[in-house]
Amino acid sequence: MTLSDAQKREIDEARQGHAATLRPTVAALEDILFQPIPLLDHGFIRVIDYMGDDNAVVQAARVSYGRGTKKVSEDRGLIHYLMRHWHTTPFEMAEIKVHVKLPIFVARQWIRHRTASVNEYSARYSVLDREFYLPDEAQLKAQAVTNRQGRGDGLEPQEAAQVLDLLRGDAEQTYANYAWMLNEDQEGAKVDPNRDGLARELARINLTLGTYTQWYWKTNLHNLLHFLRLRADPHAQYEIRVYAEALVDVLARWVPLTHEAFLEHRLGSVTLSASAVKTIRRLLAGEKIGQTESGLSPREWREVMTALDQPI
Amino acid sequence: MTLSDAQKREIDEARQGHAATLRPTVAALEDILFQPIPLLDHGFIRVIDYMGDDNAVVQAARVSYGRGTKKVSEDRGLIHYLMRHWHTTPFEMAEIKVHVKLPIFVARQWIRHRTASVNEYSARYSVLDREFYLPDEAQLKAQAVTNRQGRGDGLEPQEAAQVLDLLRGDAEQTYANYAWMLNEDQEGAKVDPNRDGLARELARINLTLGTYTQWYWKTNLHNLLHFLRLRADPHAQYEIRVYAEALVDVLARWVPLTHEAFLEHRLGSVTLSASAVKTIRRLLAGEKIGQTESGLSPREWREVMTALDQPI
Amino acid sequence: MTLSDAQKREIDEARQGHAATLRPTVAALEDILFQPIPLLDHGFIRVIDYMGDDNAVVQAARVSYGRGTKKVSEDRGLIHYLMRHWHTTPFEMAEIKVHVKLPIFVARQWIRHRTASVNEYSARYSVLDREFYLPDEAQLKAQAVTNRQGRGDGLEPQEAAQVLDLLRGDAEQTYANYAWMLNEDQEGAKVDPNRDGLARELARINLTLGTYTQWYWKTNLHNLLHFLRLRADPHAQYEIRVYAEALVDVLARWVPLTHEAFLEHRLGSVTLSASAVKTIRRLLAGEKIGQTESGLSPREWREVMTALDQPI
Amino acid sequence: MTLSDAQKREIDEARQGHAATLRPTVAALEDILFQPIPLLDHGFIRVIDYMGDDNAVVQAARVSYGRGTKKVSEDRGLIHYLMRHWHTTPFEMAEIKVHVKLPIFVARQWIRHRTASVNEYSARYSVLDREFYLPDEAQLKAQAVTNRQGRGDGLEPQEAAQVLDLLRGDAEQTYANYAWMLNEDQEGAKVDPNRDGLARELARINLTLGTYTQWYWKTNLHNLLHFLRLRADPHAQYEIRVYAEALVDVLARWVPLTHEAFLEHRLGSVTLSASAVKTIRRLLAGEKIGQTESGLSPREWREVMTALDQPI
Repeated sequence: MTLSDAQKREIDEARQGHAATLRPTVAALEDILFQPIPLLDHGFIRVIDYMGDDNAVVQAARVSYGRGTKKVSEDRGLIHYLMRHWHTTPFEMAEIKVHVKLPIFVARQWIRHRTASVNEYSARYSVLDREFYLPDEAQLKAQAVTNRQGRGDGLEPQEAAQVLDLLRGDAEQTYANYAWMLNEDQEGAKVDPNRDGLARELARINLTLGTYTQWYWKTNLHNLLHFLRLRADPHAQYEIRVYAEALVDVLARWVPLTHEAFLEHRLGSVTLSASAVKTIRRLLAGEKIGQTESGLSPREWREVMTALDQPI
Repeated sequence: MTLSDAQKREIDEARQGHAATLRPTVAALEDILFQPIPLLDHGFIRVIDYMGDDNAVVQAARVSYGRGTKKVSEDRGLIHYLMRHWHTTPFEMAEIKVHVKLPIFVARQWIRHRTASVNEYSARYSVLDREFYLPDEAQLKAQAVTNRQGRGDGLEPQEAAQVLDLLRGDAEQTYANYAWMLNEDQEGAKVDPNRDGLARELARINLTLGTYTQWYWKTNLHNLLHFLRLRADPHAQYEIRVYAEALVDVLARWVPLTHEAFLEHRLGSVTLSASAVKTIRRLLAGEKIGQTESGLSPREWREVMTALDQPI
Repeated sequence: MTLSDAQKREIDEARQGHAATLRPTVAALEDILFQPIPLLDHGFIRVIDYMGDDNAVVQAARVSYGRGTKKVSEDRGLIHYLMRHWHTTPFEMAEIKVHVKLPIFVARQWIRHRTASVNEYSARYSVLDREFYLPDEAQLKAQAVTNRQGRGDGLEPQEAAQVLDLLRGDAEQTYANYAWMLNEDQEGAKVDPNRDGLARELARINLTLGTYTQWYWKTNLHNLLHFLRLRADPHAQYEIRVYAEALVDVLARWVPLTHEAFLEHRLGSVTLSASAVKTIRRLLAGEKIGQTESGLSPREWREVMTALDQPI
Repeated sequence: MTLSDAQKREIDEARQGHAATLRPTVAALEDILFQPIPLLDHGFIRVIDYMGDDNAVVQAARVSYGRGTKKVSEDRGLIHYLMRHWHTTPFEMAEIKVHVKLPIFVARQWIRHRTASVNEYSARYSVLDREFYLPDEAQLKAQAVTNRQGRGDGLEPQEAAQVLDLLRGDAEQTYANYAWMLNEDQEGAKVDPNRDGLARELARINLTLGTYTQWYWKTNLHNLLHFLRLRADPHAQYEIRVYAEALVDVLARWVPLTHEAFLEHRLGSVTLSASAVKTIRRLLAGEKIGQTESGLSPREWREVMTALDQPI
């Protein structure tokens, strides 16, 4: 991760600036506010601001109960109940904003989550830094065979080395040519006074999808959970999963009860189709049935049996 | 406005609870946090939480400029620039949450703004309070003649009195019958032990659209401005405009620069159609033209000339 | 249901107007296009327009597979796969528009689904018809005891009759007073020339929540399924469930494969929490465990065991 | 533009498939349905499906007027009125779906419009074609001086030639290395049997932002107009503007009245701030004032005076 000295100073200063507020605060989240969590080779996530906590969820749920609220079960049970029964609107009542540095191909997956606010560094206005993602050797894998997307086994060391050389070489060369086409130094002055230099919005098209960009990303707790359910999943591409997992840790600091309910009712849950429900009923009744008798497709059978620790 | 003693105590307690935070705080908004602003006869708005300030807008805009940011114009100019050129995404970076008590017919207009989060008091779970909106006599007006929606001149005192009697009488009677059908006291016990009482979700259909409800409403600054542009407008129905105007005052406390730019480039602005632009050019060139020569419809001509202080 | 003669003629005319199109068409849906499906006492749903069919979902899913598409499994399997794995974006590629007449309290629940387009009959511009919802006697039930929202057992005939009398009486009286305050006849002329009449936007606040309104509602297939999952559920209030169930039938005509997959993987599915998964594993392994040993809350235990046909 | 023979056959077949429908159809749009409109060097837009026409807007607006509709002005005036007064919801009642082939850097701008449905070709599942955007020499321009984003004057021929050589060379080399890393032929078999080949989701990060991708994009008329207002604007980057302008032509075929009103009240309109309104009033009253007296910033003064054909 590359933070300039100026950025580090800015963060240190921001962390001096305690103020008093009547709003709910979360000490465990204040502890890491503004500070970058390093991810991949040059990326990071920094929590920049937040609004609300577990209690904001509870408070919103209880406005629905009105007078009835007095008797209602305690917070933990209520949050589990809301999560389990997909009463999702109370989770919209808390909000978080993060500053993220990430490779462009990760940004392209991330932005598909539409219910969030984003301001991205603009390569029309500014020059992108010379930073590009190069996978760890351990991450260089072949196309998966069973799974039509995703990765399978690791490459042999020699092929891995060749791949890394190509990725690094092309990233360096395309960046060098980008810089040459721009023809401007750090202060925006011409390097070669005899050339005009190409407009930034065009020069950037020479960069590869591994180039780092950055953005401010703001979303509510409900949409964050939806993002995490899809992107902290083993089927998500490794490089975005790394970000999602860091955000799951942020979640644990920010809203510990919601975090617990999320693991219980989302990440660790299993949904059975109507046919799978019938199958489980028959198995629980002691019937011996295999995939054919179950009526499930081979793939669904395999997934359900694996989830329930049954022989396939 | 009717706040129970319990609610008042809760607000007082919440206003004791100062905590330290690293987040940006806005003193002028903290001053009124949690406190109800009375509206209409029983309604209110209370700011419950917020995230960010004018600087959150600036910060998000500048991430786009990257290195270029150092030289950029100061905050006020930047916010005006963003507002004028409809660069709206930076305004999504601040968030506010309010608790609102409002008549159901106002809630029905309000909820049409979809990009917000809402948790409403549920009349399926709980019993609605005996509170209904009765207009001030000054608000009792006839249907507008020029404008097919909206109100025109005030009613004569006698008709106004009759109208108020009807509104009050029907509200009281329908509420009394609602209560009779529910057959439950404050603690939920049966009033008449020989009747079952009707389910709440059904009994409520007897209430009128003037009955008060309440909700938590959370939205970002951009969507708040959009709401205010439409609902603080003179064409909006008086009863929702009252709420919008109270929120414009909240805006002035919370984000004074954005508030100023909003008055300048939204509330006080005038949009000229392509044909109106041509008309103004001809007028500025000294041509004497009327509606017929302008090519504008009579209605658009009237609106444009009025906005520009010209004879119609 | 009340359709005026003018409306009936309009529908008949619209159903004459066959045109040729290159777009995908669905014969089973064309068969009922424009025709009202009666619901409750005065309500209806009419399909007004649609775009796409099951194949639009398949086509969109396959653009993702690119060259790989040639080998991909057939449509039915693909749609089931998408539904089961929450690959929801292809379901956004089909769209439907319906005209709905519904009581205002149902409209208030319906509108909470934000990702749809709505144009509602405006009681600021126009006078509402004298139509209000009166439940069938069979629907008049007491508040549920186990379930804090919803209905329990039916009322005794005498209480039911009293309730119906009250509902009818208040609806008729509030409407009559609404009409008196408006002081306008069908053509908009004054009934009593000596009174101004109250503006429509104010007079309507005297109407009850059982009054019928109507709107055009347009949504994509994905959001329709989400709506149906929540509103065709037994926990939804009866009056909106009636509409949802009619839309499930429309779904079966329009996109039969998606309809089948929706019943299998949404309406008929059961989601097990992480703890419930562990419990089922132990039960399948032959362990005898009760609620206490399971670690599930009594409520979750009851729900899971019921779903799987196990003794509670 | 590169359409495979298979794709051309598919389009020809689709264009044979006339069916009868009761839905509104638009002959001028049916004429070009499915057929690619070539854009840039390899891109295109094809209209794939649509729902509704100008009349869908009118119909939705009139449901609001209810009984009142009989007297209402004719369709053209109504659509102009809706557009001018930002009554936007009726424009949500028509929908369009297009298939777009576009460079990745254009896709990154396009996807910022969140209220649309998208299914993109997945480079995790499939291999991207060897197609990348190379600007026409006429488009190779220097960074703009007055405008901090965007392009200024054209490059000298020699520099332009150097730039094109670099862009082409890097695109070809990074694609060749992408193909080498994948190590698979058209049928997915290994080219070099001694290497595993890198997973597609990783190999693609070597491609540049000029590489073409494709997607299905579906949006409603309101959101399409919003997209066009921003992207058919002279400040938009040339490469996305080309797509927006093609869509403006599609708009003219599909909804000619809406297209006309859009040019009049959006693309050709000018919004005056509160201060600019005051300035115009003074100018119309014959006062001679310059920028300083106007209270406008130099930039806003210049923009307003230019728009109104006044000396700066």
